This record gives sequence, C-alpha cells and structure tokens, in this order.
Amino acid sequence: MTDSAARIAVCQAYLDGLVAGDLDAVLNLFADDATVEDPVGTEPKVGQEALAAFYQIACDFVTAAQLTGTPRIAGNEVAFPFEITTGTDENASVISIIDAFRFNNEGKIVSMRAWWGGDNVRPARAP
Amino acid sequence: MTDSAARIAVCQAYLDGLVAGDLDAVLNLFADDATVEDPVGTEPKVGQEALAAFYQIACDFVTAAQLTGTPRIAGNEVAFPFEITTGTDENASVISIIDAFRFNNEGKIVSMRAWWGGDNVRPARAP
Repeated sequence: MTDSAARIAVCQAYLDGLVAGDLDAVLNLFADDATVEDPVGTEPKVGQEALAAFYQIACDFVTAAQLTGTPRIAGNEVAFPFEITTGTDENASVISIIDAFRFNNEGKIVSMRAWWGGDNVRPARAP
Repeated sequence: MTDSAARIAVCQAYLDGLVAGDLDAVLNLFADDATVEDPVGTEPKVGQEALAAFYQIACDFVTAAQLTGTPRIAGNEVAFPFEITTGTDENASVISIIDAFRFNNEGKIVSMRAWWGGDNVRPARAP
C-alpha cells in the first residue's frame, strides 16, 4: 500500500470505527501520546485514556458517516471533509466536519483537529 | 454581519480574489505578519511581502474556484473544501484543496494552511 493509500485508509477506518462503535479500532489509529482537538478551539484531549473517554461517546452516538470529498494529503498530514449522523429517527442530526490528522513514522495519528460548529449541524430529515 | 457570516465571506472573498487576479484584495484579507503554509509540509511564507510573491503566482494561474462544501467554523478558525482550476484549454487542471484560516480579533487571517497533493490534481477535461 502506498503512503497515500495508507492515509486514505486511516480516514475510512476512522469513520468505519465510529459507525461500528468499535472503540478499540478507533483508538488503535492513534499514537499513545496523541492529541485530539475536537472541535478546534477547545482544550485538546491528550493520550489514550483521555481519547478513550472522548471516543466512547462518539462511538455511542454516531450512526452513520461518509466522506464528502477526497482526502487531501500534504506533508505528513491528511485533511478530509465528511458528515456524521448522530442519534436516530426524529432526533437524528447530520454534522458536516473537516478533520486533519498528522501522522508519525509508524503511520499512527499524533495530532487530530476537527473543525465544525453550530452552523454545520442540521436535522437528518427535512422538516 | 455575524462572526460566522463574516468568516464565510472571507472564504468566498479569498476565492473570488484569486479568480479575479486581484492581488490587493487577497492580501487585504491577511494580517501584516500572517503565515501561509501551502501546501502543508512546506516552509511557511511569513509577512505581506512573502505573501505577495506567492499570491501573485496564484492570481496569475487560477482561472476558476468554488467551494465544494460548507465552511466549518470552530473557535477562531474556519476550514473549507474547494476546487481551483489552473490554466486554460488542454492544459487546464482542477485541484481539490482544504484550507484552514485562523483569525485575529480584527477578522484578518493570521495563519493559513492548505492541504493538497498530487493525488488531488486532475485534468479539467476528461481525456
């Protein structure tokens, strides 16, 4: 697998792990001392224990996820646009997000930043 | 104009400025000591003089630009997916990019990072 293909695979594995509720699969994408700033502007979570607490919630709430554009690979980073669906039925919402991952030499994510805000949340069903 | 609307307006003004070849309009979006890392992984350009040299080339080559998703606003930043077309006719290429801008209190861009690579460049016309 080329470096590019490997990084795109990490993006997809991340979304797939959230949808499957597979916390271990998500955490395995990150280095031990990784930082997660989600959303950008909040205090970063640092290290596997903090990430586990954060991603357990995501695993519980994300019911669908899909890329909405091609991942952009640059240097040792990748940025990608995607949507997640949280909740079910009348309470379901879709959130449009852009994530950037920075990788170490082992292909693990050492830094993740996620841009999204209130303007990027919409009901999953048209009213 | 709300903060959100103002930031989205900066994204659009940036693309419009590149297409119009209006270097002053593009530079006016940035603070005096702004940094531009484009693409991510290269040495950042720092300050208006360095930005002018960089964006003159962009202004000369960009012939079209459009958002390909909604800007994501988070903290004092915005990230947005877009495409630019460079060149004309048989030589035209489309590049898929994600930019992130960080703003100061005056609404000027103090830091810009752009993710794109060779995988994100395609001919504008199908072969």
